[in-house]
Amino acid sequence: MSESRATKNGLIKEITAVSNQHIKDIRALERRKVRNETGQFMAEGLQLVAFAIEAGWEAEILVYAKNIKTHELVQQVAAKVYAKGGLILEVSEQVLSKIAHRDNPQHVIGVFRQRIGTLDDLLKAMSDGKADMAVALEGVKDPGNLGTIIRTTDAVGASALLLVGETTDPFSLEAVRATMGSIFHVPLYRATREEFLDWRPSWPGEIVGTHLQGALDYRTIKPKEPVLVLMGNEQSGLPDAFAQGCDHLVKIPMAGRAESLNLAVSTGITLFRLRESRLQL
Amino acid sequence: MSESRATKNGLIKEITAVSNQHIKDIRALERRKVRNETGQFMAEGLQLVAFAIEAGWEAEILVYAKNIKTHELVQQVAAKVYAKGGLILEVSEQVLSKIAHRDNPQHVIGVFRQRIGTLDDLLKAMSDGKADMAVALEGVKDPGNLGTIIRTTDAVGASALLLVGETTDPFSLEAVRATMGSIFHVPLYRATREEFLDWRPSWPGEIVGTHLQGALDYRTIKPKEPVLVLMGNEQSGLPDAFAQGCDHLVKIPMAGRAESLNLAVSTGITLFRLRESRLQL
Repeated sequence: MSESRATKNGLIKEITAVSNQHIKDIRALERRKVRNETGQFMAEGLQLVAFAIEAGWEAEILVYAKNIKTHELVQQVAAKVYAKGGLILEVSEQVLSKIAHRDNPQHVIGVFRQRIGTLDDLLKAMSDGKADMAVALEGVKDPGNLGTIIRTTDAVGASALLLVGETTDPFSLEAVRATMGSIFHVPLYRATREEFLDWRPSWPGEIVGTHLQGALDYRTIKPKEPVLVLMGNEQSGLPDAFAQGCDHLVKIPMAGRAESLNLAVSTGITLFRLRESRLQL
Repeated sequence: MSESRATKNGLIKEITAVSNQHIKDIRALERRKVRNETGQFMAEGLQLVAFAIEAGWEAEILVYAKNIKTHELVQQVAAKVYAKGGLILEVSEQVLSKIAHRDNPQHVIGVFRQRIGTLDDLLKAMSDGKADMAVALEGVKDPGNLGTIIRTTDAVGASALLLVGETTDPFSLEAVRATMGSIFHVPLYRATREEFLDWRPSWPGEIVGTHLQGALDYRTIKPKEPVLVLMGNEQSGLPDAFAQGCDHLVKIPMAGRAESLNLAVSTGITLFRLRESRLQL
């Protein structure tokens, strides 16, 4: 059972049937293949969706449980989505439970269009004279790590995150969740390994790679800005071809018996140390 | 069907029935309640189990698939467990698939006895004159964060990890896995919030708390050693009573629009910065 009211701007539909096609389409966004084909992704939670709208993202679809439609923030978000021509789905709790992944009585889901640029886009973005740092991840595997690194990239004030090679999807639910909203703030870019290696000499500043065999102390280098901090993946670190393309190959000294740090932790330590002189309380 | 050979040292059993009581007992260790009652926990993977044995932990039970019993490292580990009187279970692949959580043809599981000390134990351990830093987590909720922080504590060369109040279980599969073996290196301690607050004045050095409202820059303080670094939980940070008990309340300056850092990342940044003068390449 589905009732719809066509409107001047957006479209509001009430949905009570789990078998509704919109609901099926949204559920399908859990799969990377479907996200790739549609170019869409999902963000769960009222705070996260409100954050996205505030940051200038347009929700193509907004879903909320009918019993929270009078919630003030839900109304504000819905009004903005509606004004931009988005589709609003007021659903029963039963329907919501089919697409939501967290127990949350105020559950809201937004469907957004993915934004991810090319290496050329990245160069253009870095040429504004203000951007002093970007982060590149080669082959990152874990969605929680990727999301956490996007959050950290935001917090340190770096301007971009570049994904190189085969990586986990930044638009998966788990990655989006781990960004805590920073996916709507940090511009993302993507390249194959070959594209990156060809493009590497055109980077206007210097590239700093972290490597367990790195010869330099991450605390002592003074790379030319803009700095591109390049991190390898969780299992094997930076491949040789990437390590050789770095202007500085650094290591984080360790004192204990652990052989390495978690990727998100080592990225955070490196970024905050390199950008230390720019950070003020 | 189960065949057993009593031996002088350990005991080796072949198990092909999923319904075997040992297998049921091991599966039950997935539940925190059972881990608390038995005082046991599980570590998965040959590398991790070998690492534990090498660090002087005794496996009460060692499980491996019969088809990998000729693997050299499996034999070495089995010999050590056997010599210490442990129980060795050679199981069919079908049985292993019931208790293992990762697709791994060389799957090995070790059951160990939990080790976690009291506040008195922690004071004794810190009084050896060599220990210069320990980490305390109040109310940490996420097992991945906890495991990652144990790994980071190890890597930075801190001597102990203290869990305060209601926290996620450091002996859960997910936490153990995220430690990457450091759970077998970093001594753990536990206290209630009340116990910690009563005990706090007896800490021989200074306590550094991190807090979003902290007034001090984490890069500028010189706390008296041994330093206890106290972190609040993922949602709400340090409770007031804890913040007031700190000698230094610090903050990590942030430049972007992210409101906070992931707990494991902020812990890593803080620990590595505070211990910087001790870390050499």
